[in-house]
Amino acid sequence: MATQKSFAKGSAAPGPVPKGHIRLYSMRFCPFAHRTRLVLHAKGIKHETINVHLKDKPEWFLEKNPLGLVPTLETGSGQVIYDSPITCEYLDEVYAGTKLLPADPFEKAQQKMMLEHFSKVTPYFYKIPMGRKNGEDVTALEDELKDKFVKLNEDLVKNKTKFYAGDSISMIDYMMWPWFERLELFELQHCLDGTPELKKWTERMFEDAAVKATTLKMDTYKAFYKSYMEGKPDYDYGL
Amino acid sequence: MATQKSFAKGSAAPGPVPKGHIRLYSMRFCPFAHRTRLVLHAKGIKHETINVHLKDKPEWFLEKNPLGLVPTLETGSGQVIYDSPITCEYLDEVYAGTKLLPADPFEKAQQKMMLEHFSKVTPYFYKIPMGRKNGEDVTALEDELKDKFVKLNEDLVKNKTKFYAGDSISMIDYMMWPWFERLELFELQHCLDGTPELKKWTERMFEDAAVKATTLKMDTYKAFYKSYMEGKPDYDYGL
Repeated sequence: MATQKSFAKGSAAPGPVPKGHIRLYSMRFCPFAHRTRLVLHAKGIKHETINVHLKDKPEWFLEKNPLGLVPTLETGSGQVIYDSPITCEYLDEVYAGTKLLPADPFEKAQQKMMLEHFSKVTPYFYKIPMGRKNGEDVTALEDELKDKFVKLNEDLVKNKTKFYAGDSISMIDYMMWPWFERLELFELQHCLDGTPELKKWTERMFEDAAVKATTLKMDTYKAFYKSYMEGKPDYDYGL
Repeated sequence: MATQKSFAKGSAAPGPVPKGHIRLYSMRFCPFAHRTRLVLHAKGIKHETINVHLKDKPEWFLEKNPLGLVPTLETGSGQVIYDSPITCEYLDEVYAGTKLLPADPFEKAQQKMMLEHFSKVTPYFYKIPMGRKNGEDVTALEDELKDKFVKLNEDLVKNKTKFYAGDSISMIDYMMWPWFERLELFELQHCLDGTPELKKWTERMFEDAAVKATTLKMDTYKAFYKSYMEGKPDYDYGL
C-alpha cells in the first residue's frame, strides 16, 4: 500500500480502523513514532498508518488525542494509546510473536532504567544542530554526547553481547535506534569514533529486518530535515 | 523498628539485605520515594529502609546507583532498581498480594498515560513555593495548577469512580498521592476549592491503610521543609 499524504486541519477523518488491524497515527520522519513502527514490523502486526500534519493538526485527531502527539495507536474498538514507550509495551503485551520485553521483572526493569538514561541523550540530537544553525560553538555539547556514547559503549563491552539485552535484538535496541539511524542526518557520525562497540551495534542494527522495513533514504531524510530547520517542514516530501 | 538516621558520606555501608526482605534506599520526606513506600505497605512486602543523606551521599550508595537517587531498591541477590514508577511496577510484578496495576494491557497503558500527564503537574509543587520565596507573583502558576486539577476532577466525574481506576485504590492513585498529601505543606490547599470530586478523592486517600502507615505529622513535614527551603535540609528531623 502506498504511503498516504499527511492529514491536516480541515481534512475528513479516516474511516473505521480496518478489521484485524491496529491504526498508527504517525509522522514519517518522527523518531518517536519510528519506535512504534519498528515494534509493529518486528512483531509482524497488521497495521494501518495515518500520517498527521503536525504543524496543522486535524480537529478529529485532537479529539482522539488532546495532546496531538505521534505516535498514537487506535484499536478497532476505539481505544487510544499514546506516548512511544507506552505504545510499544502495549503492542508487545497484546500481540503474539517475538516478545521484545523480557518476562522477568528485573530484566524488564533494567530495560526501563536504560530507557530513562537514554531519555537524557536524545535532547543532544536537537541541541547540537540548533546550536550549529545559530552559529554557536557546539564542541562542549558534542563532548557531552561523546561521554554518553562512552557509557553506552561500556554497557556492550561489560555485557559482552551483540545487542543491549543479549545476543538478539530486544525492546531497548528499538527504543534507542531512531536517533542512531539519524546520526548522519544530524552530522554526528564522528561522535562514534571513540566507541567501537557502539559503532558495531549500529552496523548490526542496520541489518535488522524491521530497521530495513522502516527506514527512508538518507536523501529523503535530509530534504525533510532542511525544510524542518527552515521552519516549513515538508511532511509529504518524496510522496 | 525505629527509623534509622540517614547514612551520609563516610558512613559504613549497611550489611547484607536481611533474609526475606527487600531494601529500600529512601529519604523520609521525598515524594518520589513515598510512592515506593506506599506500594511496599499496600502489598505488605517485608522491607528494610535505609535513609540516605541526599546532600552528602555515601560513596557506597553511589556505587550501587551512580545516579544517587531515591527511591532505589536492592534485592537479596544484589539487584538494584531505581526510578519511582519502575520500582513500583517491579514490586507489583514480583510480589503476591493485591495487584495494583491492571492485568489488561490497555488498562495498564491508561494508568501509564495518566502518570505521564501527572508528571506535568508535580513541577508546580516546587515552582509555586520557590516563586513565593523569591517574592514573585505566583497567581498565574496557581491558575495553571488549578486548571490541571480541573482535568483531574473531570476524570473522576466522567469515570464515576471513587479512585482513578475504579472503586478501589490502584497504582495511579498511589503515584499521585505524595503531592496531594503535601498540599497543606506547600500552602496549596485552596487550589482544590473548585474541584470537589478531587477533594473527596484526597479525603478517601487519607483513610487508606498504606497512606496512614507512611505519613508523617504535618508539623514534622513543615519543620523539614523549612530547613530545606533554607538550603540546609534536616533529613533526620524528629528522630
